[in-house]
Amino acid sequence: MSVPLPAFEDIQNAAARIAPHSVVTPVLSSAMLDGMVNAQLLFKCENLQRGGAFKFRGACNAVWSLTDEEAKRGVVTHSSGNHGNALAMAAATRGIAAHVVVPEGAVRAKLEAIEQAGGIVHRCAPTIAAREAKAAQIQQATGAVMVHPYADTRVMAGQGTTVLELWRQSGGLDAIITPIGGGGLSSGCAIAAHGLALAIQMYGAEPSGAADAAESLARGARVDHFVPDTVCDGLRALIGESNLEALREHRVNVITVSDEETIAAMKLLWQHLKLVVEVSSATVFAAILKQRELFAGRRVGLVLTGGNVDLDTLPW
Amino acid sequence: MSVPLPAFEDIQNAAARIAPHSVVTPVLSSAMLDGMVNAQLLFKCENLQRGGAFKFRGACNAVWSLTDEEAKRGVVTHSSGNHGNALAMAAATRGIAAHVVVPEGAVRAKLEAIEQAGGIVHRCAPTIAAREAKAAQIQQATGAVMVHPYADTRVMAGQGTTVLELWRQSGGLDAIITPIGGGGLSSGCAIAAHGLALAIQMYGAEPSGAADAAESLARGARVDHFVPDTVCDGLRALIGESNLEALREHRVNVITVSDEETIAAMKLLWQHLKLVVEVSSATVFAAILKQRELFAGRRVGLVLTGGNVDLDTLPW
Repeated sequence: MSVPLPAFEDIQNAAARIAPHSVVTPVLSSAMLDGMVNAQLLFKCENLQRGGAFKFRGACNAVWSLTDEEAKRGVVTHSSGNHGNALAMAAATRGIAAHVVVPEGAVRAKLEAIEQAGGIVHRCAPTIAAREAKAAQIQQATGAVMVHPYADTRVMAGQGTTVLELWRQSGGLDAIITPIGGGGLSSGCAIAAHGLALAIQMYGAEPSGAADAAESLARGARVDHFVPDTVCDGLRALIGESNLEALREHRVNVITVSDEETIAAMKLLWQHLKLVVEVSSATVFAAILKQRELFAGRRVGLVLTGGNVDLDTLPW
Repeated sequence: MSVPLPAFEDIQNAAARIAPHSVVTPVLSSAMLDGMVNAQLLFKCENLQRGGAFKFRGACNAVWSLTDEEAKRGVVTHSSGNHGNALAMAAATRGIAAHVVVPEGAVRAKLEAIEQAGGIVHRCAPTIAAREAKAAQIQQATGAVMVHPYADTRVMAGQGTTVLELWRQSGGLDAIITPIGGGGLSSGCAIAAHGLALAIQMYGAEPSGAADAAESLARGARVDHFVPDTVCDGLRALIGESNLEALREHRVNVITVSDEETIAAMKLLWQHLKLVVEVSSATVFAAILKQRELFAGRRVGLVLTGGNVDLDTLPW
């Protein structure tokens, strides 16, 4: 499914649209972590965003982009967790229904959060086909508007607002790195960054067990089927068509990291930043640790995407 | 050992003295936690302070209060961890030696941090007498200036700067609660708060297994011997004489909490604030959960004191 990419102006408009509802998350740093890689690292703490993840930005922009007529019928999505939660919270800010299709096996803490936010959870089999079918079925039955987790212009624009804030808070950056799952965040951030300054180098971090973006860019055609094998539950989605196009246009350099590298990086972030971040978020620091020669001496923004962790089953 | 209490002006001077070295830590909040207790909670994140604890404020004020002549001989202290680390880091900002006496059985992560900061670690038996003797011995041998963890005017003044910042960041508060160990933080914060506004109600949280401040205030005389029995390793010290005097003068209301209540509160803070805080820090939220009628409908500042946790031995 190809959808139009947002323009820089759409991201600026999204920032204004979500401002009454979203948190301006802090940017933190650690002399210890800087020393490990000989670079200046600025961590954008989206784990402190409403709902505990950057996803609220895109969902909120989508919900408040609807006409009153559309909004009345509610919204629907499928999500392994954070986007579903975000959509439920965003829908609540407008007083409308949110239907969330969730595959069996999703992290328990995330399911509870969706229900607590007032979302209506619909279970389905843990395949991409099953969740898309279920979402389509609900859409037909209720007239709810589909808000895809990443293949959605409004969602990409909302996620891009992360970089507008980070740029303002950091006072300039040489490079920015985000995790890559479906590509909503990475595409929105790349468009935002190059709207601000063409010289910013964009990087993405992808688990080696779900490296479809890296492979798609390398072979020049989108991988359209794969079975993810990674602990990074937020990064198992297939890269979207338009999202991939944005990564290509903006020359996003994708670095793949093993789950072992990511878990080690996650522990370092907890220890030194004193932040609870989920495993998917740690891919960005794992990538810098792995390819430190690329980042040495530079001022780098890292997007920490979320903090929704089951504290009883930590991966180390 | 009785030492003069700092005046409000000393705390203001301390703030100027430490500003080039310390972090203005963020104040965070969570709608979920607010909802649990029907109050507005503003968490002052000293786990994000340099060295991962508020202790850097007091240590830094002490180190930079020394004359050049005094500074040359270095500083010495005894500490179960965070103050030692803080003093080592503060000494490093002035290029002087820091001797830290550490009792056997202290948290491993904290010892490593002291050495990494350039401090010289001296081990001793895990009794208050043993660590005071060892520190006196080093002081005699080297001429180093003693910087007591809490019974020190400069240290109390430094800790009080936490409240100056919190007040400015929060735009006004009805009440403030800090953990109570030796009383450096609670006394400094009480003096700072009432220098700002006499109407602020001050609270302290103490583990029931180290409730010497509560008992001392109740019986009108300082408990001068007890055997602490609590997981809160940062709160096992005996309340200082002057510190106790400050608590009495400023009518600090001490709430005691069980380790079980504190550990449950700690987990809630990790889950909803997405912050790594150590168990001692969680006493403040445990106290509010326990006595919620005291805080309902009010705007309350909570000082989260530190985030130095051994991630391999979490208490739940």
